[in-house]
Amino acid sequence: MQPTDRTRVKRIPDRGHYDRETIHSILDAGFLCHVGFVHDGHPVVIPTAYGREADTLYIHGSAASRMQRELAQGIELCVTVTHLDGLVLARSAFHSSMNYRSVVIFGNARQITDDARKVHALAIVSEQIFAERWAEVRPPSPQELKGTSVLELSISEASAKIRTGPPKDDDEDYAMDIWAGVVPVVHGWGAPITDALIKGDIPVPEYIRKFRW
Amino acid sequence: MQPTDRTRVKRIPDRGHYDRETIHSILDAGFLCHVGFVHDGHPVVIPTAYGREADTLYIHGSAASRMQRELAQGIELCVTVTHLDGLVLARSAFHSSMNYRSVVIFGNARQITDDARKVHALAIVSEQIFAERWAEVRPPSPQELKGTSVLELSISEASAKIRTGPPKDDDEDYAMDIWAGVVPVVHGWGAPITDALIKGDIPVPEYIRKFRW
Repeated sequence: MQPTDRTRVKRIPDRGHYDRETIHSILDAGFLCHVGFVHDGHPVVIPTAYGREADTLYIHGSAASRMQRELAQGIELCVTVTHLDGLVLARSAFHSSMNYRSVVIFGNARQITDDARKVHALAIVSEQIFAERWAEVRPPSPQELKGTSVLELSISEASAKIRTGPPKDDDEDYAMDIWAGVVPVVHGWGAPITDALIKGDIPVPEYIRKFRW
Repeated sequence: MQPTDRTRVKRIPDRGHYDRETIHSILDAGFLCHVGFVHDGHPVVIPTAYGREADTLYIHGSAASRMQRELAQGIELCVTVTHLDGLVLARSAFHSSMNYRSVVIFGNARQITDDARKVHALAIVSEQIFAERWAEVRPPSPQELKGTSVLELSISEASAKIRTGPPKDDDEDYAMDIWAGVVPVVHGWGAPITDALIKGDIPVPEYIRKFRW
């Protein structure tokens, strides 16, 4: 997509990416975003879950209590997704950095009001967090659906920023007696902890066991 | 600290915490925050590194290119730190949740202009990311210092939000034949990758080897 004035990566422009494939792959690698909006003129940033379907991002509106007024008009959001991949230990403090993949999306989000569409969006979010879970859980009742807010945001004004690889030091610093390199970040899942109140002896299902890294 | 109208946790108030100790412990468990500010009336959310010292948060101003104008007056920020601890798989979609610890801080940040204070703040951020590294790296030159922006923000208007423990389902749902429980999130560090351009055969220092989980 075309970078706009606010999506164009200004600092270290080589790290900026604007193609759909890159942006989607970063979004698809996570499910937790930080949603920024302006409330009474003040910035607010709330963590919440999301799911992507084609060029639409569905956002779980758990922060909706703060947004009610804004939501009526279609609220302007900045949604940021960040994956930390490693600590980059350069020889100088200045060039020390992190390896990461991030996406920033700007746009106006709308609340989904149609119940069928809302259930569909919730399923997308659920599948993004935990594949195959949605088919098993008790679906939302009409009352629960009413108490759940889901926003949709078009992924049209967005950019990705990526850093990979080793430190890049100043030429003269390579001669210093300092270890340099990357310490990778590892994200994973521990063994599932079955609820003490589980009925009978329901085993951990295969789709949950295989979820473990 | 006293909750204000905007730090008070409104949705599920039991999850809200306002004591210094809790807020500091969540901040100290990480080093990556999402900084929200208003730019030309629009919300912007940028990931960056931070360090805490007493009641002050130092924020690496890598996003400063967007903030220059605002910074002169002291920019209003919302800084959010989120640790995801587990996926909470309830029997119903509605009660499915996440275990997490998060902190939200509101306030006006100032740019640190004094060089000695800036170096001190950078050391705090560096130590929060990677303990003992600061003592080894080449410190910033005057020129590099000029090119580095560090903000300071008072941790005075802040709140924490925490969810722990098993799913909480509706009474009647416990009878359903659905596995429920928690899948913990595991964060860790992989083996250090030494820079291919390392001088001679500098070994991985002890403080980096022990950094590995």
